[in-house]
Amino acid sequence: MATSEVANGNHLSGTKGKTITCKAAVAHGPGEPFVVEQILVQPPQKMEVRIKILYTSICHTDLSGWKGECEPQRAYPRIFGHEASGIVESVGEGVNDMKENDKVVLIFNGECGECKCCMCKKTNMCEKSGVDPMKKLMCDGTSRFSSIDGKPIFHFLNTSTFTEYTVVDSACAVKLNTEDNLSLKKLTLLSCGVSTGIGAAWNNANVHAGSSVAIFGLGAVGLAVAEGARARGASKIIGVDINPDKFNNTAETMGITEFINPKDEEKPVYEIIREMTDGGVDYSFECTGNLNVLRDSFLSVHEGWGLTVLLGIHGSPKLLPIHPMELFDGRRIEGSVFGGFKGKSQLPNLATECMKGAIKLDNFITHELPFDEINQAFNLLIAGKSLRCVLTL
Amino acid sequence: MATSEVANGNHLSGTKGKTITCKAAVAHGPGEPFVVEQILVQPPQKMEVRIKILYTSICHTDLSGWKGECEPQRAYPRIFGHEASGIVESVGEGVNDMKENDKVVLIFNGECGECKCCMCKKTNMCEKSGVDPMKKLMCDGTSRFSSIDGKPIFHFLNTSTFTEYTVVDSACAVKLNTEDNLSLKKLTLLSCGVSTGIGAAWNNANVHAGSSVAIFGLGAVGLAVAEGARARGASKIIGVDINPDKFNNTAETMGITEFINPKDEEKPVYEIIREMTDGGVDYSFECTGNLNVLRDSFLSVHEGWGLTVLLGIHGSPKLLPIHPMELFDGRRIEGSVFGGFKGKSQLPNLATECMKGAIKLDNFITHELPFDEINQAFNLLIAGKSLRCVLTL
Repeated sequence: MATSEVANGNHLSGTKGKTITCKAAVAHGPGEPFVVEQILVQPPQKMEVRIKILYTSICHTDLSGWKGECEPQRAYPRIFGHEASGIVESVGEGVNDMKENDKVVLIFNGECGECKCCMCKKTNMCEKSGVDPMKKLMCDGTSRFSSIDGKPIFHFLNTSTFTEYTVVDSACAVKLNTEDNLSLKKLTLLSCGVSTGIGAAWNNANVHAGSSVAIFGLGAVGLAVAEGARARGASKIIGVDINPDKFNNTAETMGITEFINPKDEEKPVYEIIREMTDGGVDYSFECTGNLNVLRDSFLSVHEGWGLTVLLGIHGSPKLLPIHPMELFDGRRIEGSVFGGFKGKSQLPNLATECMKGAIKLDNFITHELPFDEINQAFNLLIAGKSLRCVLTL
Repeated sequence: MATSEVANGNHLSGTKGKTITCKAAVAHGPGEPFVVEQILVQPPQKMEVRIKILYTSICHTDLSGWKGECEPQRAYPRIFGHEASGIVESVGEGVNDMKENDKVVLIFNGECGECKCCMCKKTNMCEKSGVDPMKKLMCDGTSRFSSIDGKPIFHFLNTSTFTEYTVVDSACAVKLNTEDNLSLKKLTLLSCGVSTGIGAAWNNANVHAGSSVAIFGLGAVGLAVAEGARARGASKIIGVDINPDKFNNTAETMGITEFINPKDEEKPVYEIIREMTDGGVDYSFECTGNLNVLRDSFLSVHEGWGLTVLLGIHGSPKLLPIHPMELFDGRRIEGSVFGGFKGKSQLPNLATECMKGAIKLDNFITHELPFDEINQAFNLLIAGKSLRCVLTL
């Protein structure tokens, strides 16, 4: 069945139970340009959902996955991408919380709702469908994607969104309360980076009104932290980045009240922040993945109660640059995955807040391109020119 | 004025405003036996309290202080000791919350009640009278102790309790609701080690009923964690120590439900604990000051929500043996000073719980000796034979 038959979403039911032929951007080797080609997408199996992707965006995790940095066992051909929204085409056996034509946003860190972690209020991990960079197949150990000549194509991060159709665990699709296809464009951002930043401020740090915040690294995640902190009423939001354009172009409109460029300073950044805030901020967020920045971030919070939330990915084999005795000063540090959000439970409400304008998503979309120009979208991210480039399918 | 005139506590008012001559155990050099000798104790200054010590006990921090391990600038002669209870002899100008004859327990981590930290509910640090191992004089930079021939004797940890009389900041003396001198003997333990352990379970970890706990190191602090966890209704309390006597003699009666001796095991302790607890305990407590044990402790908690509380003192210059990415598994680690207790606000209630028997202190006192035999009491602690040896003055 050709993609053209289902392209406008009106004839979705015609594809149910059948293999769909559609377009996908396939990576055939690490760092090689994506090839937009026809692939086959099998129907969803038990507790799976097949989704027609309308919008997908690109995150740094796609970049490092595509380069093969995360994965010692390289898995190609592969369909990357994990930020996307779309429409349910069909559901597999046992899926009761979604049906055909539902609007959904995909999540790489699923919520099965039944495992020990899902039953615990303190974590958003999921034993069945939680984030796993090493996973490249569905839970039954097979792929739903193949080339036209039948060779399997690997999955990525529970989602694989650089395709017109994908299949995911139902734990990884969140039904949204919207009938508006257009609002899906910006809600795509809730799949990963923006939710991660907002959730780090809300769920991990629990930023309070009148508090002070420092954010190290002003990419999409860092700016989403700022937006989350602004929405909570933080009175001082200090942005730290070595690229002054980050402040001039976007940061100021997104809640950042002060900017520090470490390249302009002689003193360590944590000392400057302590001076600016009578001893340190209440919360700091490390969004760079650099160990020296991590230490600055840790030391920039107030002794006694300050919390550092780790968001950056640290590829270095080096250990935390913190002495055990420094923990006795009452500074704390913890990691955040997907901003601590339990996706299926909490994202519908976040989406509603975004649609009401309580959370502003528009500034995060700096570029838009048609799906076929995915290689250009990657170049924009590599060059540091885009926060998020949304691809329309 | 001779000590004999005030010895029974009936004539305390006779000493008010005067220098008191009394007996103290003075350390004249690192690791040198204490000399019990006559010293002079000046009256309390503004916001200070002079206390007649009735009981004092010995903690490992006294041991390391006495050996000169903590302090690069050695300060001798010096009066060590920081666990003690006694009676207020007189108060300095401005002290309104205590008066002569009040029963008090001393705390090394004071609570002035007025600084930024004291005003914050999230910390028990105090900017004025918080713990400071480097501090050797009163806040005005002078000592209240001197030898008979007038040479100053240094203070220790805001308290200096190896003496019949001491002077402390009013922030470091906690008035108790008891008229019973005898109950002061066991309440002495609330000065440091026992409060630290109980508070780590209550304030830092907030151990909940039915939860699982692992305690690494079964000295007085570790056993106090067990007692705190038992009082909170933890259902599994695993004790880890390389000395099997720790379990046989005391641990079982103090809430420990299972015992692991790493010397008897081939697998890493954290693996054994994960197997015993379906993935890991809810809370672990590191009470040894050993980095390998710290890592075992960190890995023994459940991913997603497990918390490791650090209590052991780490003299090594080595950094935390934890990779930043490991924090993304949702395991957390934080330090605990004085069990997170705000001493003046919270210890009176803890003392009441102890007097009612909700918290059992008796098992912690393994030895009692007269004050003059302080050197023998140190030997017991060094030999690992005592949990707490209480000295009676």
